[in-house]
Amino acid sequence: MKYNTNNTSVRLLISCHDQPGIVSAVSTFLHQYKANIVQSDQYSTDPSGGMFFMRIEFEMLDPEFDIKMIRTAFTEIGRSFDMDWRIELASRKKKMAIFVSKEDHCLLELLWRWRAGEIDVDIPLVISNHPDLKDQVESYGIPFIHIPVTKATKQQAEQEAIQKLHEHSIDFIVLARYMQILSPDFVGTFPKRIINIHHSFLPAFIGANPYAKAFERGVKLIGATAHYVTDDLDEGPIIEQDVLRVNHRYTTEKLRVAGRNVERIALARAVAWHINDQIIVHGNKTVVF
Amino acid sequence: MKYNTNNTSVRLLISCHDQPGIVSAVSTFLHQYKANIVQSDQYSTDPSGGMFFMRIEFEMLDPEFDIKMIRTAFTEIGRSFDMDWRIELASRKKKMAIFVSKEDHCLLELLWRWRAGEIDVDIPLVISNHPDLKDQVESYGIPFIHIPVTKATKQQAEQEAIQKLHEHSIDFIVLARYMQILSPDFVGTFPKRIINIHHSFLPAFIGANPYAKAFERGVKLIGATAHYVTDDLDEGPIIEQDVLRVNHRYTTEKLRVAGRNVERIALARAVAWHINDQIIVHGNKTVVF
Amino acid sequence: MKYNTNNTSVRLLISCHDQPGIVSAVSTFLHQYKANIVQSDQYSTDPSGGMFFMRIEFEMLDPEFDIKMIRTAFTEIGRSFDMDWRIELASRKKKMAIFVSKEDHCLLELLWRWRAGEIDVDIPLVISNHPDLKDQVESYGIPFIHIPVTKATKQQAEQEAIQKLHEHSIDFIVLARYMQILSPDFVGTFPKRIINIHHSFLPAFIGANPYAKAFERGVKLIGATAHYVTDDLDEGPIIEQDVLRVNHRYTTEKLRVAGRNVERIALARAVAWHINDQIIVHGNKTVVF
Amino acid sequence: MKYNTNNTSVRLLISCHDQPGIVSAVSTFLHQYKANIVQSDQYSTDPSGGMFFMRIEFEMLDPEFDIKMIRTAFTEIGRSFDMDWRIELASRKKKMAIFVSKEDHCLLELLWRWRAGEIDVDIPLVISNHPDLKDQVESYGIPFIHIPVTKATKQQAEQEAIQKLHEHSIDFIVLARYMQILSPDFVGTFPKRIINIHHSFLPAFIGANPYAKAFERGVKLIGATAHYVTDDLDEGPIIEQDVLRVNHRYTTEKLRVAGRNVERIALARAVAWHINDQIIVHGNKTVVF
Repeated sequence: MKYNTNNTSVRLLISCHDQPGIVSAVSTFLHQYKANIVQSDQYSTDPSGGMFFMRIEFEMLDPEFDIKMIRTAFTEIGRSFDMDWRIELASRKKKMAIFVSKEDHCLLELLWRWRAGEIDVDIPLVISNHPDLKDQVESYGIPFIHIPVTKATKQQAEQEAIQKLHEHSIDFIVLARYMQILSPDFVGTFPKRIINIHHSFLPAFIGANPYAKAFERGVKLIGATAHYVTDDLDEGPIIEQDVLRVNHRYTTEKLRVAGRNVERIALARAVAWHINDQIIVHGNKTVVF
Repeated sequence: MKYNTNNTSVRLLISCHDQPGIVSAVSTFLHQYKANIVQSDQYSTDPSGGMFFMRIEFEMLDPEFDIKMIRTAFTEIGRSFDMDWRIELASRKKKMAIFVSKEDHCLLELLWRWRAGEIDVDIPLVISNHPDLKDQVESYGIPFIHIPVTKATKQQAEQEAIQKLHEHSIDFIVLARYMQILSPDFVGTFPKRIINIHHSFLPAFIGANPYAKAFERGVKLIGATAHYVTDDLDEGPIIEQDVLRVNHRYTTEKLRVAGRNVERIALARAVAWHINDQIIVHGNKTVVF
Repeated sequence: MKYNTNNTSVRLLISCHDQPGIVSAVSTFLHQYKANIVQSDQYSTDPSGGMFFMRIEFEMLDPEFDIKMIRTAFTEIGRSFDMDWRIELASRKKKMAIFVSKEDHCLLELLWRWRAGEIDVDIPLVISNHPDLKDQVESYGIPFIHIPVTKATKQQAEQEAIQKLHEHSIDFIVLARYMQILSPDFVGTFPKRIINIHHSFLPAFIGANPYAKAFERGVKLIGATAHYVTDDLDEGPIIEQDVLRVNHRYTTEKLRVAGRNVERIALARAVAWHINDQIIVHGNKTVVF
Repeated sequence: MKYNTNNTSVRLLISCHDQPGIVSAVSTFLHQYKANIVQSDQYSTDPSGGMFFMRIEFEMLDPEFDIKMIRTAFTEIGRSFDMDWRIELASRKKKMAIFVSKEDHCLLELLWRWRAGEIDVDIPLVISNHPDLKDQVESYGIPFIHIPVTKATKQQAEQEAIQKLHEHSIDFIVLARYMQILSPDFVGTFPKRIINIHHSFLPAFIGANPYAKAFERGVKLIGATAHYVTDDLDEGPIIEQDVLRVNHRYTTEKLRVAGRNVERIALARAVAWHINDQIIVHGNKTVVF
């Protein structure tokens, strides 16, 4: 499976206050630059005074086109409508760092999909506060960096991680069951660029031990939630959620095992959408096109 | 569709502390009384010191058998294992009362399934704090009783309802979007015999306006929860839950509309299980066989 | 729940061969006519030589706008790109006829959603080859027309039905478990405007008695398929499908009962999409925006 | 996650014609042998003249018990009710062989679950008609045997495989996207002990290229089916099925990629049930307890 990653494939994402003429201006612009629209999605919360969101995937007919030139040219439209916008070259692979602790299921799901060509991304490094998954990560040819974290060394450990992430020009981070809470400093360094998987159907069972809480409450479905990380624990914009049917025969331990499968599927979907520039964050919510 | 409602069809439900010899004693008893087991489900939380739950559906070979005699005969086994047990004749239709306010979707789902023979139950009356659904209910040939509720008259209104329920020998009550909180007195009169449908995936969005809260939080799935009513609002034993996928295009109003379909399906399943004696309540959880 | 049915709300649907400049031409046109795009979806099977599909929902800023004038004005664009297009006023309620035989679940689902305001449509008549559902239909204030069908009278019965449909200016027909095969003549009179619900996950179990076949095969999921009717039985463009988990305890009869719930949900979704002009038929497939 | 694999944990599976006294005889037998029933499931297709199916999980109180002695002792009951029965020690790990071709997703799902302790099984070897997956399999410490298959060498290749399987005392075989049709001879050597994953919702899209056929037909859900292999291609008893929602934006290639996730989940569930002795095959169907 190959996503649309021709060298001429480009994605434009826009959010702004709704107002007349946006689509016309944008599509006329694209037509002028000989872009062929492959797919477009647009949504307004309210045509009078609401928010306007748009994602356009287009092909440049001229294979020698210059993405920077297009960005520069679009700046005027962006300014005139007071847009929050970005233009991304589909063939430019994002650089993704994965953070793990000891559990491997979310990590392996991502690595498998990466090797299978399902997610079109570079993975320059995996960072962990434990050494356990070193061999597995390295067997995929990916550097594994062990940065232990204790209460005393947390700040320093985060600084070390940030430095490594900058060295590798990391675009975004996936917390694949990384059992550490990141500081506001760290989160602020990668705004809307850290994806976490929480092992419950948020906002149910916020915080630690969601499976134990789910067992205690006797729920009939368990879930997982992939979301962007903000300073408020488990409160960031939700990207994807999924659930699995369970029954009275599930102990906490069986919930945990069953839950792994929902976690890895929900996380993998969210990561794929992020990579394909399908997500627009607005306030504490996501628009997924 | 007819469920197994031969005159000779019987259900035995047991919960007790697990201990050796229960199944043997019970099945030997049934064999002595010429009962043919059609279906049985059994589950132990832990064979040493855990709880034992069992549901057996059996046919009496002798069409002239006497259910009271069987109950009397079983009493000794029940006592010797310190069981919480009941023996129900499948052909004895339970009497179900439905409480509604103004929304009709859960009510109509139940009435439709009742008329279609999907749920094998009697519905002697529908009680409402509003007159709006009178015609609809009566078109099904079911008496509709309007008992207005205000802060001042709440206690009196509940007493009136209880009297009506007793007059009709009601076995259990379904709150089909009844927008009133019942008093501990009322709940205590029908322990484990009031089923409510909450319009969220509990424990997410406890209390009022769950769809508004779900919209606010930007969830990607909305749910509904059917549960037995206890004194703790929205905290009773969960019987069934289901969810529906939604996206950024759903306003609070669209969530509400979409949610109706999850509500009525989840409630209808829970009611069918209750009618078929498939549910054992233990602590704040349910075993659904 | 109210769908977007302002008097100024309009939908434009387009399919044509993909070629540069379509979106630009269309959106510039809409901008000129002071239309504010609320939502748009576009998809190309292949930007070079593929098919282009688009649905745009827009609001006319001028409440006195003339839909006919807009259609006329758009004709030139339509011609220049060789489009298959239509412009629909959202507030213009479509006229839907429902055909039934004896089973009421799909019929009632539609009637309930119609009364609840979930589907914004007129239902001028229900036609049946059996008299059984007359009272139910009339209790909703909808005329019920009984047109018996025998092998000998089939052609004549269809002619009678067509005449009634024309008299009421019916836009489209829903076969809500209508157990008759329509002739090519009839189907040809309402091309892409007859929706059927087949009680299986097509193409599995084509033809009669799908639940008996599903039981025989021992499937673990049963399904339902809503599709447009063509001359090839059960082979028309699929609009929506859904499934339900079953197990070895399901007899054919229990499959049938369980299946009803999938049938009515799948059919109701398909009908809502048709009413909201969300479906474009291309060849033997549907694009659902 | 550990399944119930105490040394004292035993499973009894029974199928026979229904007749009075079976459960009583079995549970009295177990009680005599100081077995404590942990879980039991029983189902009769029809109490008069139907089939009776039962699965009991029990713990032997005496840790020194002898499984062979129990089997011998049970023989008499088995004979008197003309049962098809087996008694399995849960702690006895089954030996599973995996057959693959070039696609790794189903293989890796099983290997990952095996290493995570989710499926309690031994995997003495993986056999493939292609060398591609050798390194991956060996990285899990499992021998990889390459047995090329051509039209001319097919019979000989199967004989070689059978010999290897016998050498390793293989209990059952999983075809994890093994793109070869096995001969009746081979299938007859492992009756009800070969599990295949078919990449469609059977019986839809039997045979080759189901995703291409699904694309062609324009289905809105794609599925996967895990089933026991019989001489009739894609016609064996279905163990598990699952589906995934797709839309018009899915090319055949995208269907294939999306489908992988349904395939591996459905196969992994079926394999786990087989390992835990949860499946009884009767005729061309399965009872899954």
